[in-house]
Amino acid sequence: MPQITYDAYREDVVGRANVSDTPELIDYYRRLRTLGTGALWTVANKIEPWQPRSSSVPMIWRFQDLRGDVLRALDLVTPEQAGRRVIYLENKGRSDVVAAVGWLYSGLQVMKPGECASSHRHSASALRFIMEGAGAFTNVDGHKMTLGANDFVLTPNGTWHEHGVAEDGTICIWQDGLDIPLMNALDANFYEVHPDLRQAISHPVNDSLALWAGSGLRPAGQAWAKRYSPLLKYEWAPTYEALSRYAGVSDGSPFDGIIMDYVNPATGGPVMPTIGATMQMLRPGERTKAHRQTGSFVYQCAKGRGWSVINGQRFDWQERDIFVVPSWMYHEHANASVTEDACLFSFHDLPVMHALGLYREEALGENGGHQPVLS
Amino acid sequence: MPQITYDAYREDVVGRANVSDTPELIDYYRRLRTLGTGALWTVANKIEPWQPRSSSVPMIWRFQDLRGDVLRALDLVTPEQAGRRVIYLENKGRSDVVAAVGWLYSGLQVMKPGECASSHRHSASALRFIMEGAGAFTNVDGHKMTLGANDFVLTPNGTWHEHGVAEDGTICIWQDGLDIPLMNALDANFYEVHPDLRQAISHPVNDSLALWAGSGLRPAGQAWAKRYSPLLKYEWAPTYEALSRYAGVSDGSPFDGIIMDYVNPATGGPVMPTIGATMQMLRPGERTKAHRQTGSFVYQCAKGRGWSVINGQRFDWQERDIFVVPSWMYHEHANASVTEDACLFSFHDLPVMHALGLYREEALGENGGHQPVLS
Amino acid sequence: MPQITYDAYREDVVGRANVSDTPELIDYYRRLRTLGTGALWTVANKIEPWQPRSSSVPMIWRFQDLRGDVLRALDLVTPEQAGRRVIYLENKGRSDVVAAVGWLYSGLQVMKPGECASSHRHSASALRFIMEGAGAFTNVDGHKMTLGANDFVLTPNGTWHEHGVAEDGTICIWQDGLDIPLMNALDANFYEVHPDLRQAISHPVNDSLALWAGSGLRPAGQAWAKRYSPLLKYEWAPTYEALSRYAGVSDGSPFDGIIMDYVNPATGGPVMPTIGATMQMLRPGERTKAHRQTGSFVYQCAKGRGWSVINGQRFDWQERDIFVVPSWMYHEHANASVTEDACLFSFHDLPVMHALGLYREEALGENGGHQPVLS
Amino acid sequence: MPQITYDAYREDVVGRANVSDTPELIDYYRRLRTLGTGALWTVANKIEPWQPRSSSVPMIWRFQDLRGDVLRALDLVTPEQAGRRVIYLENKGRSDVVAAVGWLYSGLQVMKPGECASSHRHSASALRFIMEGAGAFTNVDGHKMTLGANDFVLTPNGTWHEHGVAEDGTICIWQDGLDIPLMNALDANFYEVHPDLRQAISHPVNDSLALWAGSGLRPAGQAWAKRYSPLLKYEWAPTYEALSRYAGVSDGSPFDGIIMDYVNPATGGPVMPTIGATMQMLRPGERTKAHRQTGSFVYQCAKGRGWSVINGQRFDWQERDIFVVPSWMYHEHANASVTEDACLFSFHDLPVMHALGLYREEALGENGGHQPVLS
Repeated sequence: MPQITYDAYREDVVGRANVSDTPELIDYYRRLRTLGTGALWTVANKIEPWQPRSSSVPMIWRFQDLRGDVLRALDLVTPEQAGRRVIYLENKGRSDVVAAVGWLYSGLQVMKPGECASSHRHSASALRFIMEGAGAFTNVDGHKMTLGANDFVLTPNGTWHEHGVAEDGTICIWQDGLDIPLMNALDANFYEVHPDLRQAISHPVNDSLALWAGSGLRPAGQAWAKRYSPLLKYEWAPTYEALSRYAGVSDGSPFDGIIMDYVNPATGGPVMPTIGATMQMLRPGERTKAHRQTGSFVYQCAKGRGWSVINGQRFDWQERDIFVVPSWMYHEHANASVTEDACLFSFHDLPVMHALGLYREEALGENGGHQPVLS
Repeated sequence: MPQITYDAYREDVVGRANVSDTPELIDYYRRLRTLGTGALWTVANKIEPWQPRSSSVPMIWRFQDLRGDVLRALDLVTPEQAGRRVIYLENKGRSDVVAAVGWLYSGLQVMKPGECASSHRHSASALRFIMEGAGAFTNVDGHKMTLGANDFVLTPNGTWHEHGVAEDGTICIWQDGLDIPLMNALDANFYEVHPDLRQAISHPVNDSLALWAGSGLRPAGQAWAKRYSPLLKYEWAPTYEALSRYAGVSDGSPFDGIIMDYVNPATGGPVMPTIGATMQMLRPGERTKAHRQTGSFVYQCAKGRGWSVINGQRFDWQERDIFVVPSWMYHEHANASVTEDACLFSFHDLPVMHALGLYREEALGENGGHQPVLS
Repeated sequence: MPQITYDAYREDVVGRANVSDTPELIDYYRRLRTLGTGALWTVANKIEPWQPRSSSVPMIWRFQDLRGDVLRALDLVTPEQAGRRVIYLENKGRSDVVAAVGWLYSGLQVMKPGECASSHRHSASALRFIMEGAGAFTNVDGHKMTLGANDFVLTPNGTWHEHGVAEDGTICIWQDGLDIPLMNALDANFYEVHPDLRQAISHPVNDSLALWAGSGLRPAGQAWAKRYSPLLKYEWAPTYEALSRYAGVSDGSPFDGIIMDYVNPATGGPVMPTIGATMQMLRPGERTKAHRQTGSFVYQCAKGRGWSVINGQRFDWQERDIFVVPSWMYHEHANASVTEDACLFSFHDLPVMHALGLYREEALGENGGHQPVLS
Repeated sequence: MPQITYDAYREDVVGRANVSDTPELIDYYRRLRTLGTGALWTVANKIEPWQPRSSSVPMIWRFQDLRGDVLRALDLVTPEQAGRRVIYLENKGRSDVVAAVGWLYSGLQVMKPGECASSHRHSASALRFIMEGAGAFTNVDGHKMTLGANDFVLTPNGTWHEHGVAEDGTICIWQDGLDIPLMNALDANFYEVHPDLRQAISHPVNDSLALWAGSGLRPAGQAWAKRYSPLLKYEWAPTYEALSRYAGVSDGSPFDGIIMDYVNPATGGPVMPTIGATMQMLRPGERTKAHRQTGSFVYQCAKGRGWSVINGQRFDWQERDIFVVPSWMYHEHANASVTEDACLFSFHDLPVMHALGLYREEALGENGGHQPVLS
């Protein structure tokens, strides 16, 4: 029978717990256990680490490795059976929950022309980033939006939504990003199926862009009190143009190159209260410096190829690959091309960090700001 | 010698002052006057009207009537002498202050190629709306912006700014809009001449648009704590496109047609804390209904021709004409063309009304929502 | 016939208008006038002063000088005739409006036991500060509040309100403070008489204090979205205690001694969106330094005696005297007693200054921070 | 070898996943696993429940059961060894983390006269609620606060803090409440020991109350930009008085009786960004109705005795007992005395729910609003 020890987390530092097990203490600890209690000093150093130690690990999922199996789902299950045909990404460090990193979920969804999932709503905030195919659409609270590659669309907390592909479209694959794990962790997850299974489209197609996509303009007299962006859809072409214009006048960030946040035009704030999203451009040959932040990130390469060094590990990526950066791990990015730019889409929980006053950021000071890469 | 009366504002309504002059009371009133006081009931009904009674009057200034005299200023004074060559608009009802309507100032400024005014800053918030000419530019806190017809540019409260026309440009005329009268009324007006007379241009030309004109995007990590829009310039072409897109999906407002507010992309709020600005489109043949609002408006026709009925008076306008709507006066607009749209730019003090909790709006209920026009 | 001149505001400073009248220019100016326009350079230096130049002047109204005439109103007019028996204070520099200073109104209201004014509401925000008498009460939107000397009560913008004195009370005098002039200046003043003339009292007497006067506590689940303080009444005894406690741990402000703002407990912000209120204590023998602020102030001495130097003029005050400080005029205060503290109540338009981004403050640097007093 | 099944979460409901295992699918699932992925439909119904299903369970810890073992810690470990002598409460459903309920930690700390723990700071927000003893004090960022029974004190996120008991005090026990589990879950937990081990007391003792405890008053000119309450300490006597006054004018909440939130007087919002705190009074004989909320609660009885029914289980409590209500479980309270009131202190994560837009509340409709109690 293995000996249970209680003093595994001792630290010989003033101000930290440093109590060795004795027979008397072990008896005491056992008695406390029977009372639904414990001695804080046996776990204090564990639960109050000097700095965050994420249980998530950096990982990459390459599109070419997954695409075949994603498509295979088309033959294996119907949307009616499966609800949605999605292959989710599982972080090796988070065996306890279905999460790609931190409390963020990511999956690859596939759909055939003519299919449309049933409508539902939930507490989780969700987004889609289109990977391939033509004819995809998403409906949100009566607004239908048509979607092409690298378009980004929201299906926020509490909105009725459904996805489909037009009859004359092609097989479509997109990344789904959600904060399902956070909603469960916070014991706040509700789910409803639409009473009619399919919602009515009550507005002109893509009307949210006609109202809210103006540059520095908003429809007058249209109050917007909801906590997510009324724009709902962010198209790739104007996003890429905006990055290009920005690159023409600024060096951007030393850590992220030319980087822009997708925002709620009614507030200038994040697109949803619990998930933010960002697009960044690495110019030809650009290599950024390392920093670390409180917050978890799911990246998808939207254009080009390159690599990122995360916590000392190098991950090479190209279009449609997905990789994750856990909280408080150093990360830096490089564009592998000296002639083409590379673009990275990401979504993250920085709005949570900011809402709760927990955001911190730190640059790597040593080694010219670059991490040594572990072999 | 004329008899002074104190009971001119009597109203025979319960809850209102209704005191007739008597010799005893008149003696009392005279004595109060010597003490730096007065009897409230002699003025209560005057200073507490049932609803706002603006001393400003509706007026129109037609560009063709003014253009010659505006250009004549080029020959009569130099920029060095005059500071700026501006013909200001004077509301007939506001002999006490230099105001176009309410506490808003408007003037037409003219400048020759190669000229540039000296740099200054002041408490007044200011804007320009370009009427004619090529090569105009405005510099704001080191940002230079080039300007064409119907472009709208801010020179906010507290920013160093100066205007000029490029050597290879043409004579330019623009409307200046400011809240100088409000700043004076609030005893809060400060003015400074730039110590070097001309400020350095420290950023790439038009860089504010490269950073902030993205649709649903903002530069990441760029906090913006100032109370005005970092975008600074709003160009005509994308504004017109945005209105057109909006018109494609919505009937807009029954009172204003297709109407959009220029906003601060960092907040979704007004462009400056004391002045808001708006562009609206009246579709071919469109005639809106009347409403009234707390707030004063200066309109400039940016495109087409039509008329507005303000407090029962009809004002016909075409491109570059300027007209004003005083607070709480009914107004409605009509496009005179059945084939072309018409566009009205306006600026106003609605941000003041909202900041102080004073905004009200009322539709005209009678007569199908249209005012009878006084002959 | 007097010669009209247009160049009276010339300044021989680079960047300022400096154009001399010539016959040609005078002709031009006359023509502009016929077009409803003028040349900016003839008035620019006037309307854009280097710093605020208030038309209000510092003044004091001593209670002993006014009390007799205030009481005389009881015999001269009935509440039914007069609406309210109020002697208003008139700033000598503001002949255009009924204002004590800036856009603030002040008056002394008197009422006999058993009287109660009819109920009304208006856009102006109002407050009362009780000067003498027992049994006064104010009703606001169904909440009745009983009032004693130095109690401070709100009747905010848009609330039904009425004042009275209980049958078993005594003759009461209080200061009324309102922003009637501002509401008129902004063309936003509405007035209504209550349809029943007297409102029903629908809550327990003084219930707003039972809900909102807790220190660091608020009723749970009671949202408060209105823009004024739900506390409504601020009693003198706990206010004086709070100042005394504060004085025990801090030197307070060099300009104002021990000074506390009355606040909205639901937000920590000002009591009403357009009027703020403050109570300050000058310790025995205390003499503060001079500063100036954008904003207008009406002071009433609540306790003790002393003097203030405003724009170089000395004003001696004692309990119940009222004096005013116009915007951007230096002011400093002194307690005339070396054994007793002195307290000054004030109300002001700082919330307007802050809401519009116009607040500025400047300490007097010279002469040890004290103004020379003009003889 | 046990058979792994993938279809355990099937639901035969339209819009939900309902895929039965087949050999082909099981092969597919195994292959997905090797790619760091899985099929969403095998877990969708589990991770998207119809409503929250907390893994925390309702529990009570009775003070009389724990007191002896808490005191025993005085003899078993020194503060230098243990850091702090604390017995933590462990929710039976949360074996994964040290939590009393949800992401909230609770522990009982004991200290002898003359002891003082070393100073530290951390990302976790913390509070103390004093259970017994005299002479306790807490220092926060240079402010020392003296503490008596039922006093409530904050040691917010990022503040240096330390606790002690005066030489002339008695043995003290208090409840520590923190969100350590949440900080770890969000990968945002930082910890630092004060470089001098003990911080300097740089302000007068209890000065935060002298500045911020005024009713409807705040020190003028004292901006407060931090996200926690500057009041820091909330004393029992004025809290109980406030509840009593509130009870005199209102029936309070049907679910909670007379209930007040401890607030930040600078904002009216919660005391800290991630933890809120509340005190409620159950009047003699009062029995409330059941409701459920998203959010986790730790209660401590501050006065009297009674019981609560949580998720159908009855928990009887008296002074100093601690019990917890997990998220979305019905709870109702009863005062066991018909002559004395009973008071419950609680802290909770409602500020997190509100900040992220996740708050929901639901009354129990059936059975007169009362849960059947499980035997």
